[in-house]
Amino acid sequence: MSATVLVCSDCRRSFSAEDPLWACPSCGSLLDIQLPSSALGDEARSALLKAAREPATASGVWRYAALMQVDSTNPVSLGEGNTPVVPLRAMGRQLGLPHLYAKLEFLSPTGSFKDRGTTAMVTHARALGVTRLVEDSSGNAGASFAAYCASAGIQASIYVPASAPAAKKAQIGFYGAEVVPVEGTRDAVTEAALERCRRERGAYYGSHNWNPFFLEGTKSFAYEVAAHFDFDLPEHLIMPVGNGSLFLGSWKGFGELLALGVVERLPSLHVAQATGCMPIVDALQRGLDRTEPIPTAPTVAGGISIGRPSRGHLILKGVRESGGGGAAVSDREILSFQRTLATLEGIFCEPTSAAAFAALPELVRQRLIEPEERVLVAITGMGLKDTSVLDNP
Amino acid sequence: MSATVLVCSDCRRSFSAEDPLWACPSCGSLLDIQLPSSALGDEARSALLKAAREPATASGVWRYAALMQVDSTNPVSLGEGNTPVVPLRAMGRQLGLPHLYAKLEFLSPTGSFKDRGTTAMVTHARALGVTRLVEDSSGNAGASFAAYCASAGIQASIYVPASAPAAKKAQIGFYGAEVVPVEGTRDAVTEAALERCRRERGAYYGSHNWNPFFLEGTKSFAYEVAAHFDFDLPEHLIMPVGNGSLFLGSWKGFGELLALGVVERLPSLHVAQATGCMPIVDALQRGLDRTEPIPTAPTVAGGISIGRPSRGHLILKGVRESGGGGAAVSDREILSFQRTLATLEGIFCEPTSAAAFAALPELVRQRLIEPEERVLVAITGMGLKDTSVLDNP
Repeated sequence: MSATVLVCSDCRRSFSAEDPLWACPSCGSLLDIQLPSSALGDEARSALLKAAREPATASGVWRYAALMQVDSTNPVSLGEGNTPVVPLRAMGRQLGLPHLYAKLEFLSPTGSFKDRGTTAMVTHARALGVTRLVEDSSGNAGASFAAYCASAGIQASIYVPASAPAAKKAQIGFYGAEVVPVEGTRDAVTEAALERCRRERGAYYGSHNWNPFFLEGTKSFAYEVAAHFDFDLPEHLIMPVGNGSLFLGSWKGFGELLALGVVERLPSLHVAQATGCMPIVDALQRGLDRTEPIPTAPTVAGGISIGRPSRGHLILKGVRESGGGGAAVSDREILSFQRTLATLEGIFCEPTSAAAFAALPELVRQRLIEPEERVLVAITGMGLKDTSVLDNP
Repeated sequence: MSATVLVCSDCRRSFSAEDPLWACPSCGSLLDIQLPSSALGDEARSALLKAAREPATASGVWRYAALMQVDSTNPVSLGEGNTPVVPLRAMGRQLGLPHLYAKLEFLSPTGSFKDRGTTAMVTHARALGVTRLVEDSSGNAGASFAAYCASAGIQASIYVPASAPAAKKAQIGFYGAEVVPVEGTRDAVTEAALERCRRERGAYYGSHNWNPFFLEGTKSFAYEVAAHFDFDLPEHLIMPVGNGSLFLGSWKGFGELLALGVVERLPSLHVAQATGCMPIVDALQRGLDRTEPIPTAPTVAGGISIGRPSRGHLILKGVRESGGGGAAVSDREILSFQRTLATLEGIFCEPTSAAAFAALPELVRQRLIEPEERVLVAITGMGLKDTSVLDNP
């Protein structure tokens, strides 16, 4: 693999990925990975088709190592990826969508799709010689991060809001990670994590929202969808979106498939958010190019309760370029669809994941989705991640 | 597929599998599936090798439909099977076993290996026209059963001890299953479930411990192991064993592989139990052909807390014929290994699953396992199934 180059998303300066950078050293903005021209050449195309169609020694995400801008000689892997796609016939009948499918992303080592990104990011960090990885998340990303750091032999430090539920903190701590509670706002938590990285030699900020190598992992979602449908992509893909690490990874992956000439178009990429926290849907409705700070309220969909998505403008671009849309749904609708998915299909998902189903009626009503089209929903997290719904049966 | 025949394990009378039988109508004993001679012929051999080595349209368990004695025209599937095998290098170093692997059976739709058996059993029941499936389990089998019945559109009735934890009952109920609490002993729960089946027309006892179609699903575990190791099987396989539905399915599957001539020997099959409930290990130690009722005590390994395994004599036979052994481990050892697996390897499993790791030092000490041999552990259930370990971090 040629040396990977990082480019600042704002000032456009470029840097070697062999330095442990988590933001532009010049202006502090987000860094992106510059795709080398070879990544879109004949060799990459052959590697992709081979990985998709032939038995491989590597399983899951690393099956597509040739297309990932991460050194894959010694991956930190727990068997992530290779999640099944299943038809949802009963739910499809109820929604008037006879070609409804789900990709069960919760069948991941720590129970959420985050593992796709974490395996790539932690592998990159270990190759850099990082000795401490720092993250701020008390949710699925925190658990995933802690698990992969344990496997990598890297000390993890996870900064969490002091108010985070004890069970979530305990799960992160069970993997041996240092859990650092921080009082104050969500921004104060991030700032404390960043301060640790600035202060301590060998510490590296591996946030799933900032670190561009995370998306090198989540883009495998797109490759797997293509392989499952034998490169005849479904017309629609619906995802719950907070910071959008699955959305952005998928968009990147589908874009590569298009550039490689193995698919003819992208699926329309649709965003589901909770009415309590809907910056993306708000910006879509108002025709904005960037998300704006809007009032938020607590929601059962904790995984997408992100008021200021770090790459919000890119998510908006992805929705529009792919012909997708967005819908915000109430907690009542989310919980109702979570239950319906369990009773009709036998799938117990997180409330966050149920938001994607709850968004379908509105997307159909807006004629963004036509009944005869193929619709794929990403079920991002497993139900046992949040059992509060079982507390009052 | 030729018509499947059931044979009584005791009086040897045979019956058509097209009748909804859950025990011998003549003597009441357990029924087994009679493997037709075609199942061990050239056609079956070709089908197996094709499924193991070539891309298939069906994923997971149903990839091996040609070898399952279940009508596969309309499977009730949630994407089960096809679980990853990962090397455990750090744990292996600690145990002096450099070739230690785990098969992550908890990456199953409901979080445990039971889904392999349930998909087969519920598919068979639906083909029979069963309208109500009855089971007695408050654990992983109950949740799996409830999920697959929901997907199949079959009403599930799950009989549970009245004392079962509320969270487990709530999870089963979330899938829409009828949860029936029964006061008294574990046997009273089973008896109440059987009584329901005798009383109600269309009700069928689908117990994972009794129903032979369950093993038609769990035997796919053996096929997948063979495929992963390209038919050069590891020397050892360690499983936590209660009623032994994974053990017996694996033994059956490996036996078929041997009969088909695609492997040269079976792995040695080893049993891990908790010292609080160790009827199999006790019988192995005392050289008995059948398990005997022995005193039991509560254990953190709830999934294998089975005092009278329904097919105990077959488990003993499987251990002995394969050159395996057994070890009983304390709750302290189980919890210690559960934690070690999380901190060294980033895998958070149920206490029941950790028992298999806790058994390794004793199996090595007994020279049943030599350090240079390849050792595979089945991690049967995910950590989030039982979070009591997180309550007092």
